[in-house]
Amino acid sequence: MINDDTICAVSTPSGVGGIAVIRLSGQQSKQLSERYLRSLSGKRISLCDRKAMYASVVSEEGGFIDDVVATYFKSPHSYTGDDVVELSCHGSLYVQQRLLQLFVDGGARIAEAGEFTMRAFMNGRMNLSQAEAVADLIDSRSQMSHSLAVSQMRGGYAKELEHLRQELIDLAALLELELDFSDEDVEFANRQRLQDTLNVLSGKVQRLVDSFQIGNAFKQGVPVAIVGRPNAGKSSLLNALLSEERAIVSEIPGTTRDTIEETMTIDGITFRFIDTAGLRHSADPIENMGFERAIRSAQQARIILFVRNVTVPFDALAMDDIAYITDRCDMNNKHLFFVHNKCDIPHDSTPPGHIVSAKEGIGVEELKQSMVKVIRNDVDRNDGVMLTNMRHYEAMQKVLAALGEVQKDLDADLSPDLVVINLRDALYHLGTITGTVTSEDVLSSVFSRFCIGK
Amino acid sequence: MINDDTICAVSTPSGVGGIAVIRLSGQQSKQLSERYLRSLSGKRISLCDRKAMYASVVSEEGGFIDDVVATYFKSPHSYTGDDVVELSCHGSLYVQQRLLQLFVDGGARIAEAGEFTMRAFMNGRMNLSQAEAVADLIDSRSQMSHSLAVSQMRGGYAKELEHLRQELIDLAALLELELDFSDEDVEFANRQRLQDTLNVLSGKVQRLVDSFQIGNAFKQGVPVAIVGRPNAGKSSLLNALLSEERAIVSEIPGTTRDTIEETMTIDGITFRFIDTAGLRHSADPIENMGFERAIRSAQQARIILFVRNVTVPFDALAMDDIAYITDRCDMNNKHLFFVHNKCDIPHDSTPPGHIVSAKEGIGVEELKQSMVKVIRNDVDRNDGVMLTNMRHYEAMQKVLAALGEVQKDLDADLSPDLVVINLRDALYHLGTITGTVTSEDVLSSVFSRFCIGK
Repeated sequence: MINDDTICAVSTPSGVGGIAVIRLSGQQSKQLSERYLRSLSGKRISLCDRKAMYASVVSEEGGFIDDVVATYFKSPHSYTGDDVVELSCHGSLYVQQRLLQLFVDGGARIAEAGEFTMRAFMNGRMNLSQAEAVADLIDSRSQMSHSLAVSQMRGGYAKELEHLRQELIDLAALLELELDFSDEDVEFANRQRLQDTLNVLSGKVQRLVDSFQIGNAFKQGVPVAIVGRPNAGKSSLLNALLSEERAIVSEIPGTTRDTIEETMTIDGITFRFIDTAGLRHSADPIENMGFERAIRSAQQARIILFVRNVTVPFDALAMDDIAYITDRCDMNNKHLFFVHNKCDIPHDSTPPGHIVSAKEGIGVEELKQSMVKVIRNDVDRNDGVMLTNMRHYEAMQKVLAALGEVQKDLDADLSPDLVVINLRDALYHLGTITGTVTSEDVLSSVFSRFCIGK
Repeated sequence: MINDDTICAVSTPSGVGGIAVIRLSGQQSKQLSERYLRSLSGKRISLCDRKAMYASVVSEEGGFIDDVVATYFKSPHSYTGDDVVELSCHGSLYVQQRLLQLFVDGGARIAEAGEFTMRAFMNGRMNLSQAEAVADLIDSRSQMSHSLAVSQMRGGYAKELEHLRQELIDLAALLELELDFSDEDVEFANRQRLQDTLNVLSGKVQRLVDSFQIGNAFKQGVPVAIVGRPNAGKSSLLNALLSEERAIVSEIPGTTRDTIEETMTIDGITFRFIDTAGLRHSADPIENMGFERAIRSAQQARIILFVRNVTVPFDALAMDDIAYITDRCDMNNKHLFFVHNKCDIPHDSTPPGHIVSAKEGIGVEELKQSMVKVIRNDVDRNDGVMLTNMRHYEAMQKVLAALGEVQKDLDADLSPDLVVINLRDALYHLGTITGTVTSEDVLSSVFSRFCIGK
């Protein structure tokens, strides 16, 4: 299908640069471009499919605007599936605006954010989760977030979803068969077999739901909470961790004043370090507020660095601190690292953990490598297939809930036609992920994440 | 000529966007790109001249990086004249960096600022003044600065320079003929004819030199000084002038605290308004400093808006103010506008000028149109051929000085072989503009103005 209305936008980053690319998509793209394109000798030119052609752009009144390279992508073999024309022009703000104005005057309209990709989805060039992965890919700033987006765009994730869908359909088919043959005594749809299939399926969905914490951590950066008593050297440790990578360290805007948050990419994995107030119970409510924040950071973290001063005895008090944290966090989703700091100062033997000196830089590299290793293991455990998208996570939770209802129905020995209703519900929520089921709201929320021009 | 070393850079504006373009130029561009490009079925692909091809980029180890559209431009029919490959990739920072890294690992190097255009110049694809116009075009933010850059890139300016060059060469030839035939009595090189040609030529160069003030004003914005007594309503006038165009008004960063400078584009011409302190001689040195600044702004302006309160009699004091300004400015290069402000208040008849009320918006539009008109007349007087570039201006001044020396030589009746030396000097300086004469210094200064990737 070629869209009737033709949209246009600057697809390259906003600002001034060597070149910029103006993209048109829709039925009029070719004709509209050709109206303004001229050869060096001033003649009109005809665009050919996927042929890059030098041309001048002139206005209706014949005024020269710019020399461009124009490339036509004939429907359906274009990004959007529509007829597409891309004009590579000089990256002047004036030229970019003037060209857009020209096409708008000629009858095109300025594309909305993500509208090119929305058309690609509408025209069946990609499914909804792939379209979302395009936005993730564009946002990616590290190797890991990039490969997650790529996997969602092209790989295992789509296959996994398709398997799940097929299994749900098979399960529903079994139930419906039983329904058809409800008067007879048929083997193939016995309750035990239904139950087994359902268990396997629920397990898979549960694992995907569980993968969201790590998947999301990768996308946003793996949260690392640095906790410990005052003067354990938490800030020094943060500085030591960041020091060698200073060039790629950036502060995250909008963080609260009282927790320091910095990001660093090690071996392609982005970590978000949260330096918290010292762990110390106090009568002072202000100090206790800092303490509560430390606990909250630990609760949200994937990795907890419990920092202690190695020269202070590892006594019941330290054990209490640790218990206090572990009691308040779901440790199934976390890695707790003991960091025995200040090892440059003479000290007694320590319990297992990382022996470091933030001050002297001893053991810091080993600590980093351990962090990378545990996160890589998390990824491998999920075969690289992870939920990274909040919308998918919510949909998958609904799938899981619907499967729970199916289980209840089976337990209550309900009639297959009732059980099937909940199964269809699970299928529906799964379909919202890939876009086989869509609504205006979902589409507009998905595509509003995009920049203009994509 | 194809450059041995292959350069690469992101040619689109820096930042995140829908797409970004990575450009390679040099002998290895095609081979290097093909090493990492794969078809959908995973096979290696061969790039064809000016054919846009879908491909995946994979690393040496086979890791997928991005889906791109790759276009090869075979030497010499490319922007640089070298073999060029352009890869249109997703506009992710990570992808952009990863692709550059790939090509650098493969043997390319990151291009320096302007290096693609420098190669275009070196390979004879454009002359030096055209290359400079590319930078101007990219910087252009208004219709007028755009059309000046376009004219320099493609049109009248280059022709004008070539005419001048040809006339200088002809003049030198005449003198050399006279030299050859110095023993004979030849008609064709009589002194009067030399003198006439020299006069015409000097006049043309002088006009070009004079055009710099207006040409530069166009490029930077036409400077408009708003002067007048305190409470004449200067700031109100500025606000009234800007009000309708508020959306495109921007403050220029780095202006001094004590003169307000704002820019506005009217009918494609950018004006820079300088609101100055009130014109009032005073015993107070601070007030006099403001007064001196007002005079300096007027001296640098192309348009002076002399604002007065129409309800105050136009007396000898006002005449003094005007004389004070006109005595201190070269009025040949300026347009002086009388602005009789506050016309909403009952008042006597006024001398000629613009009768406005900044407060009520009366006469403001007419004032704007008058300003546009005088500037358009300036352009027309120069047939649109103007010096806009400081480097060209300085070179052209040297041409003029050398022609002055030629004149002196002729006046002193020097031997032709001595006169020719100064003529050659004029030709030399003219040659630095188009780049027939170049030095490392000139080239590096010209191309350092460019952004990376162009």
